[in-house]
Amino acid sequence: RIKLRKHIVSPYDPHYRLWEMFLMVLVLYSAWICPFEFAFLHYLPSTMFLVDNIVNSFFAIDIALTFFVAFVDPKSYLLVDEPKRIAVRYLSTWFIFDACSTFPFQTISFFFNRHGNSLGFKLLSMLRLWRLHRVGSLFARLEKDIRFNYFWTRCAKLFSVTLFAVHFSGCFYYMIADRYPDPKRTWIGAVIPNFREDNLWIRYVTAIYWSITTLTTTGYGDLHAENTREMLFDIFYMFFNLGLTAYLIGNMTNLVVHGTSRTKTFRDTFQAASEFASRNKLPRHVEEQMLSHICLKFKTEELKQQETIEGLPKAIRSSIAECLFYPIVEKVYLFQGASFNLIFQLATEMQADYFPPKEDVILQNEALTDLYIIVSGAVEMRAYVDGVEKVQGRLIAGEVFGEIGVLCHVPQPFTIRTTELAQILRLQSAVFFNIIRESRQEATIVMRNLFQVNPIIDQHCLTK
Amino acid sequence: RIKLRKHIVSPYDPHYRLWEMFLMVLVLYSAWICPFEFAFLHYLPSTMFLVDNIVNSFFAIDIALTFFVAFVDPKSYLLVDEPKRIAVRYLSTWFIFDACSTFPFQTISFFFNRHGNSLGFKLLSMLRLWRLHRVGSLFARLEKDIRFNYFWTRCAKLFSVTLFAVHFSGCFYYMIADRYPDPKRTWIGAVIPNFREDNLWIRYVTAIYWSITTLTTTGYGDLHAENTREMLFDIFYMFFNLGLTAYLIGNMTNLVVHGTSRTKTFRDTFQAASEFASRNKLPRHVEEQMLSHICLKFKTEELKQQETIEGLPKAIRSSIAECLFYPIVEKVYLFQGASFNLIFQLATEMQADYFPPKEDVILQNEALTDLYIIVSGAVEMRAYVDGVEKVQGRLIAGEVFGEIGVLCHVPQPFTIRTTELAQILRLQSAVFFNIIRESRQEATIVMRNLFQVNPIIDQHCLTK
Amino acid sequence: RIKLRKHIVSPYDPHYRLWEMFLMVLVLYSAWICPFEFAFLHYLPSTMFLVDNIVNSFFAIDIALTFFVAFVDPKSYLLVDEPKRIAVRYLSTWFIFDACSTFPFQTISFFFNRHGNSLGFKLLSMLRLWRLHRVGSLFARLEKDIRFNYFWTRCAKLFSVTLFAVHFSGCFYYMIADRYPDPKRTWIGAVIPNFREDNLWIRYVTAIYWSITTLTTTGYGDLHAENTREMLFDIFYMFFNLGLTAYLIGNMTNLVVHGTSRTKTFRDTFQAASEFASRNKLPRHVEEQMLSHICLKFKTEELKQQETIEGLPKAIRSSIAECLFYPIVEKVYLFQGASFNLIFQLATEMQADYFPPKEDVILQNEALTDLYIIVSGAVEMRAYVDGVEKVQGRLIAGEVFGEIGVLCHVPQPFTIRTTELAQILRLQSAVFFNIIRESRQEATIVMRNLFQVNPIIDQHCLTK
Amino acid sequence: RIKLRKHIVSPYDPHYRLWEMFLMVLVLYSAWICPFEFAFLHYLPSTMFLVDNIVNSFFAIDIALTFFVAFVDPKSYLLVDEPKRIAVRYLSTWFIFDACSTFPFQTISFFFNRHGNSLGFKLLSMLRLWRLHRVGSLFARLEKDIRFNYFWTRCAKLFSVTLFAVHFSGCFYYMIADRYPDPKRTWIGAVIPNFREDNLWIRYVTAIYWSITTLTTTGYGDLHAENTREMLFDIFYMFFNLGLTAYLIGNMTNLVVHGTSRTKTFRDTFQAASEFASRNKLPRHVEEQMLSHICLKFKTEELKQQETIEGLPKAIRSSIAECLFYPIVEKVYLFQGASFNLIFQLATEMQADYFPPKEDVILQNEALTDLYIIVSGAVEMRAYVDGVEKVQGRLIAGEVFGEIGVLCHVPQPFTIRTTELAQILRLQSAVFFNIIRESRQEATIVMRNLFQVNPIIDQHCLTK
Repeated sequence: RIKLRKHIVSPYDPHYRLWEMFLMVLVLYSAWICPFEFAFLHYLPSTMFLVDNIVNSFFAIDIALTFFVAFVDPKSYLLVDEPKRIAVRYLSTWFIFDACSTFPFQTISFFFNRHGNSLGFKLLSMLRLWRLHRVGSLFARLEKDIRFNYFWTRCAKLFSVTLFAVHFSGCFYYMIADRYPDPKRTWIGAVIPNFREDNLWIRYVTAIYWSITTLTTTGYGDLHAENTREMLFDIFYMFFNLGLTAYLIGNMTNLVVHGTSRTKTFRDTFQAASEFASRNKLPRHVEEQMLSHICLKFKTEELKQQETIEGLPKAIRSSIAECLFYPIVEKVYLFQGASFNLIFQLATEMQADYFPPKEDVILQNEALTDLYIIVSGAVEMRAYVDGVEKVQGRLIAGEVFGEIGVLCHVPQPFTIRTTELAQILRLQSAVFFNIIRESRQEATIVMRNLFQVNPIIDQHCLTK
Repeated sequence: RIKLRKHIVSPYDPHYRLWEMFLMVLVLYSAWICPFEFAFLHYLPSTMFLVDNIVNSFFAIDIALTFFVAFVDPKSYLLVDEPKRIAVRYLSTWFIFDACSTFPFQTISFFFNRHGNSLGFKLLSMLRLWRLHRVGSLFARLEKDIRFNYFWTRCAKLFSVTLFAVHFSGCFYYMIADRYPDPKRTWIGAVIPNFREDNLWIRYVTAIYWSITTLTTTGYGDLHAENTREMLFDIFYMFFNLGLTAYLIGNMTNLVVHGTSRTKTFRDTFQAASEFASRNKLPRHVEEQMLSHICLKFKTEELKQQETIEGLPKAIRSSIAECLFYPIVEKVYLFQGASFNLIFQLATEMQADYFPPKEDVILQNEALTDLYIIVSGAVEMRAYVDGVEKVQGRLIAGEVFGEIGVLCHVPQPFTIRTTELAQILRLQSAVFFNIIRESRQEATIVMRNLFQVNPIIDQHCLTK
Repeated sequence: RIKLRKHIVSPYDPHYRLWEMFLMVLVLYSAWICPFEFAFLHYLPSTMFLVDNIVNSFFAIDIALTFFVAFVDPKSYLLVDEPKRIAVRYLSTWFIFDACSTFPFQTISFFFNRHGNSLGFKLLSMLRLWRLHRVGSLFARLEKDIRFNYFWTRCAKLFSVTLFAVHFSGCFYYMIADRYPDPKRTWIGAVIPNFREDNLWIRYVTAIYWSITTLTTTGYGDLHAENTREMLFDIFYMFFNLGLTAYLIGNMTNLVVHGTSRTKTFRDTFQAASEFASRNKLPRHVEEQMLSHICLKFKTEELKQQETIEGLPKAIRSSIAECLFYPIVEKVYLFQGASFNLIFQLATEMQADYFPPKEDVILQNEALTDLYIIVSGAVEMRAYVDGVEKVQGRLIAGEVFGEIGVLCHVPQPFTIRTTELAQILRLQSAVFFNIIRESRQEATIVMRNLFQVNPIIDQHCLTK
Repeated sequence: RIKLRKHIVSPYDPHYRLWEMFLMVLVLYSAWICPFEFAFLHYLPSTMFLVDNIVNSFFAIDIALTFFVAFVDPKSYLLVDEPKRIAVRYLSTWFIFDACSTFPFQTISFFFNRHGNSLGFKLLSMLRLWRLHRVGSLFARLEKDIRFNYFWTRCAKLFSVTLFAVHFSGCFYYMIADRYPDPKRTWIGAVIPNFREDNLWIRYVTAIYWSITTLTTTGYGDLHAENTREMLFDIFYMFFNLGLTAYLIGNMTNLVVHGTSRTKTFRDTFQAASEFASRNKLPRHVEEQMLSHICLKFKTEELKQQETIEGLPKAIRSSIAECLFYPIVEKVYLFQGASFNLIFQLATEMQADYFPPKEDVILQNEALTDLYIIVSGAVEMRAYVDGVEKVQGRLIAGEVFGEIGVLCHVPQPFTIRTTELAQILRLQSAVFFNIIRESRQEATIVMRNLFQVNPIIDQHCLTK
């Protein structure tokens, strides 16, 4: 949406994102092929050599492209599209690493050594692993993206790290054995005497098998270090594994704690309410109202959302309230003929609650502090007549209750109980009076509406 | 309680629940027998074949039944009993899986192959494991049911998963060995040369032994992979184990943290109070009052319950207060003759506190902001007379104190101290005045009651 | 302190506690000897037999004694000393277990079998392990006792459980080998062919070595199951270990999280303040004041204590404030001659804060909302005179500042800065006016004190 | 900065810190060499002997130096520089340990035994490991230092502990084998028959290899205990490892939980807002405003900083507000000519908020409760004219809005929307009136400024 200079690409551009995803595939290929070539292939086959160079050239293109991609300034949070600043930033940070990891050392090695098998050049070609930092950035972005499940994103990240560690150290361990002078005194040679002549697949699987056996600390012992070099590598690998395993467990614990926190909070709240009811021997219907209210709160995740909304600035909250409640408040008989201004202000002060079926909203004789408007669902009015509770009427969506109590200061004549799941708006009477007090004209309209619909209470209210 | 259409069963129906529990037993049987048949039984004995078909038919019945079971709409949280909507929902979600997992592939395989031993049909019969999703749903429901202990429900779930993983991979690993061309080069053949002729029990126990040895990462190494196929399976199994172990530990940590949080909060609060007392050299009796108050709060779990109650809507809180406090407030001498309305409103505004024995409720000379009514227990009135604190009287359940201070604005003449565990209602004086101010008549009754019982203070109070 | 009926002992009685601790030692002895006798001793030596019976008799005494120990009612939290209720409670709960675990099965077995080596009686004597529940109760009590470090109490508990598990299963595993028909085909016989003739010490250490190797999942494999019986036990043991290890790690995580939470909160707060300062380029002295204030808050653990105090009921808070602040407020020149009542009320409303050296308490020209009294430490008064900040005076413990601003509504003439660590009481001016307004007489005394000490401001203040 | 007595060094002195760091290097050397000498060197080479004595002498110097280093009193948090108190404290705490760990036992052993190989003196020289407590203190200090990353500090600590445990037990285990009478029946002798004649490097690596294999519970089994002594050591080591591994995992979990908490809170908040929007079908622009507001809050870490600032005492908060807002408020046209005093008081009451681009700050027709001043960024004024929203003007940094609404009580004529990232000060109108009400003169200046700039509203406002 934001317009940038010519020839400068936004990092949020969908085409650029696609290019990044394509590079990611190449990164994964590099991550797998680098250690494998290093350990198992004495002479690089020409097809592989070709593929390696093609992959390299894509990364070279990306280096050039980076000079034309805007970046977000970490202080002002604004996109910078000035070519000079982009270049300075890239050259002073990651350019040198990117360049080294793309430089075709293997091709050059052919000029020195026909087989490209010198250890030095092989090590230099391991620089290609620097590309893996891109995977790290990708996961950091995915974790913040709520379209992806946090648990699985995190698991995928951990699995990738583990897989790479297993593959890399399997290959490296094989290389140690491969280059050891006495093949019999190596971890693999002790079990497969002529391992160098064996099938590549068997050697690779055996190396990975050893690697995972060590990483998971299973350690069957059928394959184990036979000489000092192998022991040293093993020592380092096991230290690394200790850290990695702890990290895996730590992450899993974190995810489990996060994932079960809602259920636990629900259980605790429910249990507290239930214990309170049983300890105080509350009547069955009160206990049921309590528990079904708590259940509803958790099912609708109302608590978390309410908290989030309350943290927003006032203008946004007003916008939300206007969208949600203006159409409802406008149709209420009390406010027929009132100005847009009044209804807007009332709407922005409304609070919405959900009530499960059969819950009391107001009790008979309660002192009223709020005015209620039904958004959806229905309620019934009940009153004790000669000691027996009887249904006196029924209100549906769009109707209002509590208005007589609030406007005429009389105690509530009916118990209001929901008959189905109901969403009800609530407006504090103090706030209501503050708003209608502003203009005498508006107040007259509201009172006239009230008396027209409830002619009986006219006298009673006026005397007050 | 909710009435449904004819022939439609509620998912909460006790008979349906019983049927579900019965199916659960069959699911567990399937979970055990499927991998076992797959790996160990070349020729299915006819009794087993019969049992399998009976079990299958029960699941077929359940598929038919599901078309008559109402479901809860995930948006409106209401039960849907319309047959058409039930059918659409089932057919578009799980029907195809349920049908496949119930289809008698094994019986059909007999038409093609007399022994029912073809690998293809065996794999198809593994579809029966789909039924395990029912166990998942069961545990999800149990976790939210506070009648069951969360710790043990969760442990049972984890144990079931682990047991199944061990059983399944033990069987699978045996099958790999069983079908390997060279029996000597298999994990079991290397230890028991003629294992195929051996006792079924020995083979099964050995497979499970290997499986659990690997899963727990003990890895004695007496049984280990001997060929590439086994290594590959082992690699996958160990990766899975890494995840499973981390998940087990994560869950256990979660449960431990949850289970010890109360003790830790108690210790922290107690320690903070204790350190505060010792650093400020508070007198011994004040420190004791602090500490015993904190102990009581935690023993009665008051804090959590209070928080829960405060989160409920006003009508429910009023109902609770009416149930708990109306009978007590009604009998207080101050409110004899007052209207139901007044007492109801007072009762709904009361707050209940527990006080441990020997704790001060009010201090002599303190400015009073509350009126107190004793629900249970007893308190004594103490006052300094000539520098010596003396007991001046004793109040028991149903009596009120602080009323003179609040109504006549005089400082508190006595220190009130509990003699035993006491529950005391508290009413803020501001709230009290707001309520009795509403009606002049009621106020007169309350004041008359006060003067009748305390004739001496009459003069003093009136002059104010 | 609480008086009980004759012959009834309180569970908090120090002598009873001592007796309980003595029994605990015997429990530990039983826990060790039971599995050991079971596995290793074919014929019980007579000294051991004697010791066993003496230990048993102590537990028999304890059973009798329990009928005379009062208990805490779980509902009313009161001690019950009625002999009948004590007996009913004990007989209906744990009596039967205690009795069985004390019954001398071993002695009786001699009548049937001269060597006391029958498996049945051996199993019956394992009932003595029931006594271990006492260790559980002990640890539950220690965890709530703040005199003991939570970390070490919890570690000791986990270590005990682990030690017992290792010992028990080591012994059990040895017994399986010992009773196996073919000694060569047992886990120990495969390594030490004539193990039954070997030294008891070697056999015991080997069993424990196997047990711990398996529990920690090290699994060297030098000792491993050789027959189905051993495999079955191993399977159960490894399942148990999986749970135990997860439980150990879960507990340790819990302790680590708890132990480092203070440091982490400190770091987060400090970092937030530090980042805020650097992002807004605040002057160096303001940043230092912020950071040293945060450091002090954490060092003195003020936050936690303040929160705890605020959760206490009003009477206790008043008692604390009286103890702490009355002697200080009494000596302030402003309140010389004021009544006990006034000073008491002021003292109970005071709030104490710590200020690190060189922190500003009030700034010049700030609108004053509080009155301050120095409890300890010293402050200096600084003011800008001709653009240069100069020290104008120095106040020490017992002196008051801000009183002129509050009483005469003039802006603060000096910046007040601490010169050393200072504790300062703060009283909100609104609260102060509410209290002195109650009595005209008291107000006059306070104002007279003010004018006597600060004659210059007299005129200025009166005109307001 | 703080002046101390002559010859007394502050513990915060940079030179002293340097000396401490230098000693730390020697401590690490000691930690490595002690177990190594103990296990592998029968005869100490003379160069090593010399180095050991030089290292020892440095620690002797440090003991002497400690008598001249001030310390922080744990109660008053003040530096104590009195030589006598320093000496008493040191002599009564750690002096004896420091002295023992520095005493040259090895040198003395030469008088008794020419080779310095007696076990007794070797054990005594292990006392040097006491020096390791310095590493503990160093890490405790680093953890509280926010210049160092908590994660890596903690990891470094755990790695050091693990490394030392591996090294120490590797050496100790070798020593057991070395001193065992029958070299063939030792863990190393079973694999390398003539190990005592072998290369020192091979023996050391093998010992470390065994140690790490056991600690990580890999337990290949190629090296394992062969006699009771080794088994006993192994038992103890494995118990220790169980605790250490649990501790490592616990710490890692703690760090992971801490490290991911921000991302998780962000995700939860974002998701709650997003679900709320989609459930209530809010218009797209309102949803975007909500989400971008939440993103900004988290990016700027505003929440945590705001909380921290609010916990500071009032004087510091005033200092901060003065630094940040005085220069801005001073330049606002409304307050031209007002006194320093008024502007200072207004500045200290301002609250700063960040608004992302395109967010509404006030809505048209909203009742105004705040006055706004733009610090950076820009906003545009939009109003509905004939049902179409049109941009009416643009305000930039230093300008004020909402002042007419607040001062003249008219509803807000424009919607104010940010065009770029904006920082805006907010002042509650109630607070504003309280401050300008204090002086009639100031109020007149403010109103005159208002009318001069907005001549049209003059009439309208005065009539109110």
